[in-house]
Amino acid sequence: MSQPAGCILPLLALLLVPPQGSSARYDPTWESLDSRPLPTWFDEVKFGIFIHWGVFSVPSFGSEWFWWYWQKEKRQPYVKFMDTNYPPRFSYEDFGPLFTAEFYDANHWADILKASGAKYVVLTSKHHEGFTLWGSKYSWNWNAVDLGPKRDIVAELAMSIRNKTDLHFGLYHSLFEWFNPLFLKDAASIFTTRNFPSAKSLPELYEIVSKYQPEILWSDGDGDAPDTYWNSTGFLAWLYNDSPVRDTVVTNDRWGAGRICKHGGYYTCSDRYNPGHLLPHKWENCMTIDKGSWGYRRNAQLSDYLKIEELVTQLVKTVSCGGNLLMNIGPTHDGRIAAIFEERLRQMGVWLGVNGEAIYGTKPWRAQNDTLTPGVWYTFKPKEDLIYAIFLHWPISGTLVLGEPKTIAGKTEVKLLGHGDLLKWISLGEKGMVVNVPQIAFHQLPCPWGWTLQLTNVN
Amino acid sequence: MSQPAGCILPLLALLLVPPQGSSARYDPTWESLDSRPLPTWFDEVKFGIFIHWGVFSVPSFGSEWFWWYWQKEKRQPYVKFMDTNYPPRFSYEDFGPLFTAEFYDANHWADILKASGAKYVVLTSKHHEGFTLWGSKYSWNWNAVDLGPKRDIVAELAMSIRNKTDLHFGLYHSLFEWFNPLFLKDAASIFTTRNFPSAKSLPELYEIVSKYQPEILWSDGDGDAPDTYWNSTGFLAWLYNDSPVRDTVVTNDRWGAGRICKHGGYYTCSDRYNPGHLLPHKWENCMTIDKGSWGYRRNAQLSDYLKIEELVTQLVKTVSCGGNLLMNIGPTHDGRIAAIFEERLRQMGVWLGVNGEAIYGTKPWRAQNDTLTPGVWYTFKPKEDLIYAIFLHWPISGTLVLGEPKTIAGKTEVKLLGHGDLLKWISLGEKGMVVNVPQIAFHQLPCPWGWTLQLTNVN
Amino acid sequence: MSQPAGCILPLLALLLVPPQGSSARYDPTWESLDSRPLPTWFDEVKFGIFIHWGVFSVPSFGSEWFWWYWQKEKRQPYVKFMDTNYPPRFSYEDFGPLFTAEFYDANHWADILKASGAKYVVLTSKHHEGFTLWGSKYSWNWNAVDLGPKRDIVAELAMSIRNKTDLHFGLYHSLFEWFNPLFLKDAASIFTTRNFPSAKSLPELYEIVSKYQPEILWSDGDGDAPDTYWNSTGFLAWLYNDSPVRDTVVTNDRWGAGRICKHGGYYTCSDRYNPGHLLPHKWENCMTIDKGSWGYRRNAQLSDYLKIEELVTQLVKTVSCGGNLLMNIGPTHDGRIAAIFEERLRQMGVWLGVNGEAIYGTKPWRAQNDTLTPGVWYTFKPKEDLIYAIFLHWPISGTLVLGEPKTIAGKTEVKLLGHGDLLKWISLGEKGMVVNVPQIAFHQLPCPWGWTLQLTNVN
Amino acid sequence: MSQPAGCILPLLALLLVPPQGSSARYDPTWESLDSRPLPTWFDEVKFGIFIHWGVFSVPSFGSEWFWWYWQKEKRQPYVKFMDTNYPPRFSYEDFGPLFTAEFYDANHWADILKASGAKYVVLTSKHHEGFTLWGSKYSWNWNAVDLGPKRDIVAELAMSIRNKTDLHFGLYHSLFEWFNPLFLKDAASIFTTRNFPSAKSLPELYEIVSKYQPEILWSDGDGDAPDTYWNSTGFLAWLYNDSPVRDTVVTNDRWGAGRICKHGGYYTCSDRYNPGHLLPHKWENCMTIDKGSWGYRRNAQLSDYLKIEELVTQLVKTVSCGGNLLMNIGPTHDGRIAAIFEERLRQMGVWLGVNGEAIYGTKPWRAQNDTLTPGVWYTFKPKEDLIYAIFLHWPISGTLVLGEPKTIAGKTEVKLLGHGDLLKWISLGEKGMVVNVPQIAFHQLPCPWGWTLQLTNVN
Repeated sequence: MSQPAGCILPLLALLLVPPQGSSARYDPTWESLDSRPLPTWFDEVKFGIFIHWGVFSVPSFGSEWFWWYWQKEKRQPYVKFMDTNYPPRFSYEDFGPLFTAEFYDANHWADILKASGAKYVVLTSKHHEGFTLWGSKYSWNWNAVDLGPKRDIVAELAMSIRNKTDLHFGLYHSLFEWFNPLFLKDAASIFTTRNFPSAKSLPELYEIVSKYQPEILWSDGDGDAPDTYWNSTGFLAWLYNDSPVRDTVVTNDRWGAGRICKHGGYYTCSDRYNPGHLLPHKWENCMTIDKGSWGYRRNAQLSDYLKIEELVTQLVKTVSCGGNLLMNIGPTHDGRIAAIFEERLRQMGVWLGVNGEAIYGTKPWRAQNDTLTPGVWYTFKPKEDLIYAIFLHWPISGTLVLGEPKTIAGKTEVKLLGHGDLLKWISLGEKGMVVNVPQIAFHQLPCPWGWTLQLTNVN
Repeated sequence: MSQPAGCILPLLALLLVPPQGSSARYDPTWESLDSRPLPTWFDEVKFGIFIHWGVFSVPSFGSEWFWWYWQKEKRQPYVKFMDTNYPPRFSYEDFGPLFTAEFYDANHWADILKASGAKYVVLTSKHHEGFTLWGSKYSWNWNAVDLGPKRDIVAELAMSIRNKTDLHFGLYHSLFEWFNPLFLKDAASIFTTRNFPSAKSLPELYEIVSKYQPEILWSDGDGDAPDTYWNSTGFLAWLYNDSPVRDTVVTNDRWGAGRICKHGGYYTCSDRYNPGHLLPHKWENCMTIDKGSWGYRRNAQLSDYLKIEELVTQLVKTVSCGGNLLMNIGPTHDGRIAAIFEERLRQMGVWLGVNGEAIYGTKPWRAQNDTLTPGVWYTFKPKEDLIYAIFLHWPISGTLVLGEPKTIAGKTEVKLLGHGDLLKWISLGEKGMVVNVPQIAFHQLPCPWGWTLQLTNVN
Repeated sequence: MSQPAGCILPLLALLLVPPQGSSARYDPTWESLDSRPLPTWFDEVKFGIFIHWGVFSVPSFGSEWFWWYWQKEKRQPYVKFMDTNYPPRFSYEDFGPLFTAEFYDANHWADILKASGAKYVVLTSKHHEGFTLWGSKYSWNWNAVDLGPKRDIVAELAMSIRNKTDLHFGLYHSLFEWFNPLFLKDAASIFTTRNFPSAKSLPELYEIVSKYQPEILWSDGDGDAPDTYWNSTGFLAWLYNDSPVRDTVVTNDRWGAGRICKHGGYYTCSDRYNPGHLLPHKWENCMTIDKGSWGYRRNAQLSDYLKIEELVTQLVKTVSCGGNLLMNIGPTHDGRIAAIFEERLRQMGVWLGVNGEAIYGTKPWRAQNDTLTPGVWYTFKPKEDLIYAIFLHWPISGTLVLGEPKTIAGKTEVKLLGHGDLLKWISLGEKGMVVNVPQIAFHQLPCPWGWTLQLTNVN
Repeated sequence: MSQPAGCILPLLALLLVPPQGSSARYDPTWESLDSRPLPTWFDEVKFGIFIHWGVFSVPSFGSEWFWWYWQKEKRQPYVKFMDTNYPPRFSYEDFGPLFTAEFYDANHWADILKASGAKYVVLTSKHHEGFTLWGSKYSWNWNAVDLGPKRDIVAELAMSIRNKTDLHFGLYHSLFEWFNPLFLKDAASIFTTRNFPSAKSLPELYEIVSKYQPEILWSDGDGDAPDTYWNSTGFLAWLYNDSPVRDTVVTNDRWGAGRICKHGGYYTCSDRYNPGHLLPHKWENCMTIDKGSWGYRRNAQLSDYLKIEELVTQLVKTVSCGGNLLMNIGPTHDGRIAAIFEERLRQMGVWLGVNGEAIYGTKPWRAQNDTLTPGVWYTFKPKEDLIYAIFLHWPISGTLVLGEPKTIAGKTEVKLLGHGDLLKWISLGEKGMVVNVPQIAFHQLPCPWGWTLQLTNVN
């Protein structure tokens, strides 16, 4: 991982100016839409939880792409799973009534999400399977109110998140649907017809924005169709100009084939995007605790779940480089957040309880990671002039060498977050500094997965 | 039951002239559409079988209106049935996967239908529940290909009927759908919006006509919306002008609120319509063998099924008055025609094997039923100058008095269909005639449910 | 079919003397048990209904031997049915919870049974599958109270039959169970161990007799094991000496390999046993309306159901030869008597309403069937000195020649049951008589499936 | 927690002499049976895994006592859970087919169990529900081969454990069954009849011992019946004298009401028994990772799972006091060990990888826990003369005061397991010693949940 040579911070800062009230109006062109400043709250919160839930949580095998892998790609493990456990002619649609959600308790979810230290949540209101977690008028008999839970999953979570936490509420929405015949027909015409977006995806988008007022609209799944097919710019112009969330809503960049990482709100570029260096545009690293799937899958092993050390590393590296981390969990078909996910979430919360000061509301520093000691990442609070050096490996030697911060004699101070006392250090001049890490017993710090030095008055 | 005073036969005959090839084109107005002559085959065949099949065949309780009675009207027997036998939160949609049709064998159905003597069949391609028995592109995940049978029920029956029988193949189609949110939204706007017909019912109509080329399009369920909402005249103009069945297709009169019995093809007026006198417009009596339901219901008793004598009576009375009889059966959720229905159908076939000459290809006579002896109905074959007097009660006295036919001395002949010998008769002059019914033993005629006298050279 | 030369009536009469109160006691030997006179009621009632109901009614395919054919014999249609419609690893036991019986209404069944004219009913309390229709203590979790209906099927029917009808209530019980591991282990030891009868079949027999006091105990299924294995004589001695039904209970002859048609109560010999001649021992013809199965099977065609004419023939022929007819129906898994069965039962009732006088309480005559005219069967009422000649084909000629009855000049009288007037006849001396059958119109007799001449004062 | 005054070690040692081959025979009396020395392997292995799996894993709600709480005690949460999610009349038996176990992979389980450091495993071959995880001949249609998995769960695990690990294989078996009518009938007679043990529990015990040769027979559930009812001494005499596992099998003390903690093999006394002091008889602490249930329950929260620190504490305290720890997990109905359980198991394995030397094969020392410093527990290896002081809290001061070990000048050595170097210490004479704990960085020891000092040459 290399540090970018030139500093592109000014450019980024430019994009993060607050919205100018409701006076600005946008045209349905990328040029105009891209000019909208990202609402400031998003860069400040840094850490969100992604939730993939849907009918795919019923077979709960392999991947949330179960339907596609089974019936379109006919991958062996999926075909075999079905052949072994279900009657012939069992279809994916038959899983619908089995999506029971009887243990789904949005208040309880909200408690867990809050405990994780996350500041936003994004729920799959509809994945590529087309099943809507709300009672969409445009998805009759293939939604969570008509089938399965018989509940408005989206409404319940929105309510609990807003009542019980300070998290921002966001919705994921897939534009295309793998097997929707209207989409397939449009696709067969190379998208010269637009029956599907007219009858399904656009009405749904307007519906969820109006009903649930999400502050994040996490678009996905262009189905290889251009934004003109989806009329993405038209929708976004409405979203930015006239929707009830026009002042605060944040969107991403997945609004049409070839547009990803180029247009829209913040950039996601690809799944698990984590470039390791600073970017000139606000971005997000969406990734999964279960390395192999976004939806819950019963065939995951313990080794498939990222360890808390790895999750902390993801967060630190992402935030240092200007990104937000959107960490995914997959609830079970009956509405539970498996204990292993709850544990990881709460561990994140414990870590952030100590180290959150170095994450929330920070900006990237001029250096993202240290040039001498690997595993040291920097964040920055310009107003308070504080530099945070987060180190992921406790130095056996008892001293930590930092190549980037230059001390100021008599002024520089170093603290370990969660510890209190000032730490001793030695200046290396232009070569940085050496910090004496305290002799801390096991059990003295709340968590052993990454530590933060708060540096005052360094250059 | 009285005979109509004036004779309105010429009017009817006028409407039954054959179509003039593809040269005539129709405007999307009732005036123009109503001017289309009914294709001649329909009046000739007289007898068809109606088949009500759908997801309602799964609960198979009470009525094919199960969903409506249960959830909208909350009728006690329906609510209790569900409370007693299903989990809370079980929805009608949950019945979808249980519509298994594993015994559905369209060839076998075709054999039974053929044996009934019927000359056409009308299948509910979609009832008010909205579930399509074909894999409609516009009813994704709520159709027989995606859910339940995983088969194209319509295609299979069309194929078998055409390969194995000479029956005409027809499709029932409900315009409205009880609970479709798009329809409900239109209805809430008092049909000032037309999202539902645009997105659902019209595309479906074009789809089934193009794919299955039905010779009867049996429309139903206007949902209290006017024909302008449904764009019925627009669709019918296409059907009559440009569809693949434009030369042969027959439709009915259920194309919009207030239009029934007034516009369209033949008239159905109301369910189980059987006026008992001649009408100036071709009509059809659609009725059910199970007196209480169109769909199969498990709680029917034997006494709920019309006896064969009653069915023969329905046919005779209907045909004498210029109507066609469309007799309904309801298959089971697993694809069977219950033995009691098969028995009734085969009994009809046996009766028509003997008496069909007096049914198929006939016209109403100047009198529909006899003025002196009740239970005697007339049909007529103008070309052969044959009058048929169908009597439903065997005269204990051995003689049958007929008030309508006037004999011609030396020329009039009387035969009993299925018997052979000429019967003796006595003229009553203007008062009719008396026929000597032969002394026939039990077992000598194939069926004891109505008999036909063929009269030659009477006035 | 030949008439037996010598008359063996006295022997039969001997066996039918009434029981001598509770004074007689029987040893557990066949010699002693066989000496017990058959309670008189059984010969008088003539006609019963057999009911095969159990878990086999769930797959309802092929036969009530479904389990055996599928898993033991691996017959193709059964294997294919399961492979096509059920998941791999689905077992017969998995059908248990699907035996729902939600439409089972014992009062309604009682009404139908009564309307059939039957005077007894025999229900399969347990078939070879081992599933008990009552909550047997010895069949935990494999009975109708723990699984499926969650109701005591036997108790409900017993109650309704006794409250609403004059039918005698009987129970079928299978000694062996195809797949019970205790039985299989005994069988593997060539029945040198007797774990199964000790733990299962004998306790069950005592249980049903004590709880439900059946007047018929219809034993079946010796599993190729001798009566000594089953301890049949021990059980029967208790049944005859000490059970609550010791005075009235009737049993059959299926109590051990090699004993059938030789020992026990009345003889059944084989399924559908109908010898066509008189037997020296009271016997019963148990047969099915559905020619192909005892349990309800969904793949039966209409042609598989015996016509009412055939059923009447069975009854007449059986009773003429001294047997009882036990006519079987198979209810559906959800507790209904299919309409086709109800129709046949009610038709039997109609026939017996007219002709029952020639059936109930009769004895075989010296001749069973007529020597000159085929299809004429005789019954006899010694006290009233009435002979009944039941003829199954209406004579086209108008006269019926009877070779057996010898008229007595001036005294012999002939009536047609249901008609009233005395019929004319001509004596043929030793060669019998010729009866003038009346000219009766269709519709004048209630049923056209067999007629009875009542002959007074003939030899 | 206080240390027992007198030392009872000799008594315990006496009981742990190895078995004297097959020469010794035991009478069916407690006096004789209790005289059998416990096979030595059991005391050496210290740590086992308990697995509760059965039909209760299907509702997976509340407790493995689900059936009892729901239907017998009618506890509200259970009744409500059923009312809310299942149809009326749904019975516990209906859960049987839903126990699918499709993800059950005994080899994978064996890998996880091995990784935990456990040396034995005990599987519930049958819990109080009566459902046998093997295809018991005496539990027809209520076992895992006939229903649900359709697999011999016991055989598969036995095979994998023996092929892939060095764990001893044990089986739990419940004597009584809550709702077995045979047991209830015996109970109603105050156990004067013994139909149930004769027909069910004893045959089953012989069956599992013969088929699976378990080295532990973990009896449970006397149902308030005395050992004479169960014929426990008769069975144990066979087990010890003539069974295939007579030389190595270990049993516990749950063989009859009032006998627990008094007779049999090792003592379990009560669930989660952990006396905190030395016992004169070998004992076992069986406890659960999920504090609230032995079976898997979906409504467990993360806080219901014991933390790894707590589990280590349980192990250390138990072993120091002469017990074995049997730590329970509950697999899911579909055959998975939830990730949270796998994590705890693997954490135990990591801990034992470092500290196992202080656990396996040890004996209680004269002191069980330290008199000066809380949270320090001792174990002992007599042959090597090694004392282990396991301390559960890392001393912030950097020094650990031990009140029990008395140093020997020039000879005493102290090591930290997993660290290597000799540690410095200071003698306190009769008052013990002070050990300098090394300055160890986070990440230098594999696990921070308890550490072991190995003491050589102390008194």
